[in-house]
Amino acid sequence: MRYSVILGNLGNTCDRFLSSGYKKDEQKESLWEQVGNMPEVSGIELVGTWDVNPETLREVTHNLEAYSLECCSIIPDLFGQQRWGKGSYSAPDADVRKQAVEYTKELVDAAVEIGCGLINIWPGQDGYDYPLAADYLEERQWLLEGLTECAKYADERGVKLSLEYKVKEPRTHSYLARAADTLLTAQATGFPNVGVTIDSGHAFAAYENVGESVALLSMFGEKLFHMHFNDNYGFWDDDMIVGSIRTVEHFEMLYWLRAAGYSGWYSMDQYPYREDAYGAIRSSILYLKQLEEIIDYVGMEAVQELIRKRDAVQTAEFIRNHLLGKPGQQPS
Amino acid sequence: MRYSVILGNLGNTCDRFLSSGYKKDEQKESLWEQVGNMPEVSGIELVGTWDVNPETLREVTHNLEAYSLECCSIIPDLFGQQRWGKGSYSAPDADVRKQAVEYTKELVDAAVEIGCGLINIWPGQDGYDYPLAADYLEERQWLLEGLTECAKYADERGVKLSLEYKVKEPRTHSYLARAADTLLTAQATGFPNVGVTIDSGHAFAAYENVGESVALLSMFGEKLFHMHFNDNYGFWDDDMIVGSIRTVEHFEMLYWLRAAGYSGWYSMDQYPYREDAYGAIRSSILYLKQLEEIIDYVGMEAVQELIRKRDAVQTAEFIRNHLLGKPGQQPS
Amino acid sequence: MRYSVILGNLGNTCDRFLSSGYKKDEQKESLWEQVGNMPEVSGIELVGTWDVNPETLREVTHNLEAYSLECCSIIPDLFGQQRWGKGSYSAPDADVRKQAVEYTKELVDAAVEIGCGLINIWPGQDGYDYPLAADYLEERQWLLEGLTECAKYADERGVKLSLEYKVKEPRTHSYLARAADTLLTAQATGFPNVGVTIDSGHAFAAYENVGESVALLSMFGEKLFHMHFNDNYGFWDDDMIVGSIRTVEHFEMLYWLRAAGYSGWYSMDQYPYREDAYGAIRSSILYLKQLEEIIDYVGMEAVQELIRKRDAVQTAEFIRNHLLGKPGQQPS
Amino acid sequence: MRYSVILGNLGNTCDRFLSSGYKKDEQKESLWEQVGNMPEVSGIELVGTWDVNPETLREVTHNLEAYSLECCSIIPDLFGQQRWGKGSYSAPDADVRKQAVEYTKELVDAAVEIGCGLINIWPGQDGYDYPLAADYLEERQWLLEGLTECAKYADERGVKLSLEYKVKEPRTHSYLARAADTLLTAQATGFPNVGVTIDSGHAFAAYENVGESVALLSMFGEKLFHMHFNDNYGFWDDDMIVGSIRTVEHFEMLYWLRAAGYSGWYSMDQYPYREDAYGAIRSSILYLKQLEEIIDYVGMEAVQELIRKRDAVQTAEFIRNHLLGKPGQQPS
Repeated sequence: MRYSVILGNLGNTCDRFLSSGYKKDEQKESLWEQVGNMPEVSGIELVGTWDVNPETLREVTHNLEAYSLECCSIIPDLFGQQRWGKGSYSAPDADVRKQAVEYTKELVDAAVEIGCGLINIWPGQDGYDYPLAADYLEERQWLLEGLTECAKYADERGVKLSLEYKVKEPRTHSYLARAADTLLTAQATGFPNVGVTIDSGHAFAAYENVGESVALLSMFGEKLFHMHFNDNYGFWDDDMIVGSIRTVEHFEMLYWLRAAGYSGWYSMDQYPYREDAYGAIRSSILYLKQLEEIIDYVGMEAVQELIRKRDAVQTAEFIRNHLLGKPGQQPS
Repeated sequence: MRYSVILGNLGNTCDRFLSSGYKKDEQKESLWEQVGNMPEVSGIELVGTWDVNPETLREVTHNLEAYSLECCSIIPDLFGQQRWGKGSYSAPDADVRKQAVEYTKELVDAAVEIGCGLINIWPGQDGYDYPLAADYLEERQWLLEGLTECAKYADERGVKLSLEYKVKEPRTHSYLARAADTLLTAQATGFPNVGVTIDSGHAFAAYENVGESVALLSMFGEKLFHMHFNDNYGFWDDDMIVGSIRTVEHFEMLYWLRAAGYSGWYSMDQYPYREDAYGAIRSSILYLKQLEEIIDYVGMEAVQELIRKRDAVQTAEFIRNHLLGKPGQQPS
Repeated sequence: MRYSVILGNLGNTCDRFLSSGYKKDEQKESLWEQVGNMPEVSGIELVGTWDVNPETLREVTHNLEAYSLECCSIIPDLFGQQRWGKGSYSAPDADVRKQAVEYTKELVDAAVEIGCGLINIWPGQDGYDYPLAADYLEERQWLLEGLTECAKYADERGVKLSLEYKVKEPRTHSYLARAADTLLTAQATGFPNVGVTIDSGHAFAAYENVGESVALLSMFGEKLFHMHFNDNYGFWDDDMIVGSIRTVEHFEMLYWLRAAGYSGWYSMDQYPYREDAYGAIRSSILYLKQLEEIIDYVGMEAVQELIRKRDAVQTAEFIRNHLLGKPGQQPS
Repeated sequence: MRYSVILGNLGNTCDRFLSSGYKKDEQKESLWEQVGNMPEVSGIELVGTWDVNPETLREVTHNLEAYSLECCSIIPDLFGQQRWGKGSYSAPDADVRKQAVEYTKELVDAAVEIGCGLINIWPGQDGYDYPLAADYLEERQWLLEGLTECAKYADERGVKLSLEYKVKEPRTHSYLARAADTLLTAQATGFPNVGVTIDSGHAFAAYENVGESVALLSMFGEKLFHMHFNDNYGFWDDDMIVGSIRTVEHFEMLYWLRAAGYSGWYSMDQYPYREDAYGAIRSSILYLKQLEEIIDYVGMEAVQELIRKRDAVQTAEFIRNHLLGKPGQQPS
């Protein structure tokens, strides 16, 4: 498994009540250093324009080399600028839609330049808030047109587009909301380089079982391109440390990623508002690794055998034997 | 608009705590009579095996004529028999899967016999409850195979299959869960006679905006075949009287059904546990009709103009002017 | 810890779609035998009228002795009879309200007779479904009056009343909905023998952290009288095997039950619709016992020290070290 | 009815993705002007330290007079400063707890100075995020101690404290979470000047029926001191225009506020991220006023008669006749 981290997650994080953030702002250099020093991590995700833009390409390249990191994905900032406030690819204003496409193309170019093969598109502002205040058909059409143009551009340059869905926030309803509708959109572009990113927390908040979402994307064409990990209570994108709430679902998710032949990155995406960011993010990786070791120990075949028994009582026994701690177990 | 009713909704309804039901059991004949006497209703939905089966075909035909009703859909009982307890089309037991297909074919034949053009398939038991106790890929494959075989059979006889989704209940997770995954499944059968049923309450419980779901199914191929109506609080399939909770969303839904050119039935599907069933169901129809009259009055163009303003303040004004009552308004 | 089981959970369970139940009906004697044979179990909860009523008192006494079980609670059937369909203590019909009180008193007498010290009151039908169709003040008043009369009667006979809350189902809204409002109601009776039952699944479905609910009831007067255990996804009373979804919350819950000095029973309350009931219920107990052993191993002080660090990163480390399995750990 | 507005709602609003806000920042003077010009509004709520602090008292007094506004409440800023990031009254750091109390006292003094009789306390940071990372008992105790000290201070100066609850956000779990636990806390201070604020949207997000919450607070001691209004989808504090989603619940809420003898303010509390703030807030007031006119027209007795029928079918008829618009109704 190759683990990666979104650079900005190590910095200050704010919410709508404390817009200055819960911590001190940190120098970007220090964030790079932290990622570079995380032993399990070999990849990094960068957010354009914050982390990567035409002016900083050289610096980024330098950092990637200095810290022996691969840039596994660039996430265009289609959510944190006022111009996208009412949408990016599906904005009512044609000029804004054009800007969204052009901006994406710029980052495709940047990706090529720094040797990154994937643009992770989270069009968080593309959605709606109120009933009876949006033309779903027209806006979905705009979204599709914008994505298709980006897909063509990226395809010609050997770059993949991975569409990240989220059922809500910052809009009360997003257009890329769940695994299946995002897959439909990816398919509708007609380009083979368009796939889907599952952010586990986004999927939980849509009441998806992530294992099943992985299976679904695999069944309808090997369309899972990228994975983001974090945990939550099921109602909101709480962006917590992996394993803080769910155990069995995380184990199952890792099983399905292997079973479906997923070969992409395992990228951490959290908002450690009040926590030490380095510790919070690394905790997630260590949790996932411990689960992977359990899969290795029991074997993929044993897990497949178990799930084909379709018997919750035997699953419960498996949980007690393998997933739940024992008193006095040796810390690994 | 053509309104219809699911026959069984007029009878006794139970839940897991009061399995004998909240009311007296009624004679089937009395249920037919009630539907027949509902002035706005010209269609009926029948559940096989309860309402329609090889033995009762003649009686059903007689009743349809006697009450001047069209059978707009037959709903195979794939949920209320012990043999489907662990699934129907996707049951672990190959024999049960075969039975599910054969049983569906029988009802296709019945549909042909009584002049009904649509089988509404709600495979409520096809899903899973616990993490790590199902093989999503194998089960989704079984589901697809079963549906494909049914689709072929129905297509040859000029009957449509409409797949009704529901995010959960009776399983904690259903395979046909949301509009988009159900559309993917319908497409994957490869048969043009397979489409999707939106049950508005099921969609609400999946946090879908039904207007958007209608638009989505229209955008990806005119795949909305049938509509069920009921209201709820957004967390569960409460199966309440339409308009008890939501006003604006219902108005918007009716707008989109017209805008998308939906020409199917508007069928009521409720569980009036403690209410007078006739009154509860008719209330839903009267509510929808009142909304339709408002659409007629303001005009489709005005609504389209409004939604293209994408301005919640203007929407709020529209709501106060047209959707919210005024003191002393004349009862219609 | 003393573990108990609700007798009926071992029998057939139904839902609104499959009212005949997912399994074969079983003889009551066989259910008793199963409880009696569960090694970890020394208590039983009985539902009146199903399991205990004036006619069966002798048989119950015999069974309790034969299987060396203590009856830790009687649950009046205030939910599964048509007469309670629109409420029991708060029913609009004064005669029904009177019946609810009288029926409860009968079971207080039965409890005295069989040496049971606690009546667990779950007035599941006392609530409402639709907005603008209930008089909350009048109904809450009726509820309080009924409970107060029962409390007086029980107090004179040395029996406790424990009020079990549940946010919804079978009504869309219950009057005893959450820990705090149930405590207010218990207090308002003015009788010291009235307390609260936490059903962990009910609390999860109300987005309560059960550990906090335990602390709350302790803080406002040692009012936690009884505990029911089961797991769910957070949206509905799925009544699943304990530990199928949540690990950390269960550990924390057990910590708080000890920390708050709870000395009552740990009673399993599940609906194993499609599972082997004996296995499903025993799995919950084994899961809880394994967690208890971990608490014993690490020590209450260590847990208190951890929670007072209020540091999610250290909690994550604790989870990996103690609550999450290790590859190759010895099955206990 | 006396309507008021929270000053800051008219300004720029941000979220965690767009921390600079969706609009231009506005001069405070312009916000005052907008409130002053809203014809239906006679009150204002101010957030300390932003809107009111020792330095600006004279200016505030001037503005109140200039715009003929009454300051109906001051909301201490216990949520938007880094020092409260891990809690205010219940912060782990004793010095921070002390600061929270002192800061509240300062605002009590300010209230006295400008003739405001109510401090609206929303301790949004007092809660927790992760299981097993908080000592609920200790923290609830600290919270109670802090509030009690503030209550004493305010009581001596003739000022009320109204505790505003919210089930979550910015923490995943708040200590003042729901109506009943907040009432318990208010009672536990032992001071009669402590009551509860219902923010309708916070209550919706906790699955409360606000009408019932009003009834509950009335039943247990006339403890409803203040009201905030906004609408949402039921899962999150979307802070939308009143009436965008719910109709019947709003009508019922207004009925209960009258029936319970609530004599406080009707204060709008919204986050019009992408909307014209003036228009969005005034829309809420106009919506509420239209509902009030309907209550006036049909009469309180008629509504009481309706809810005592406890018949959803008759409620549905009432909805169609009075709450749902009619085609061609005269705009008021």
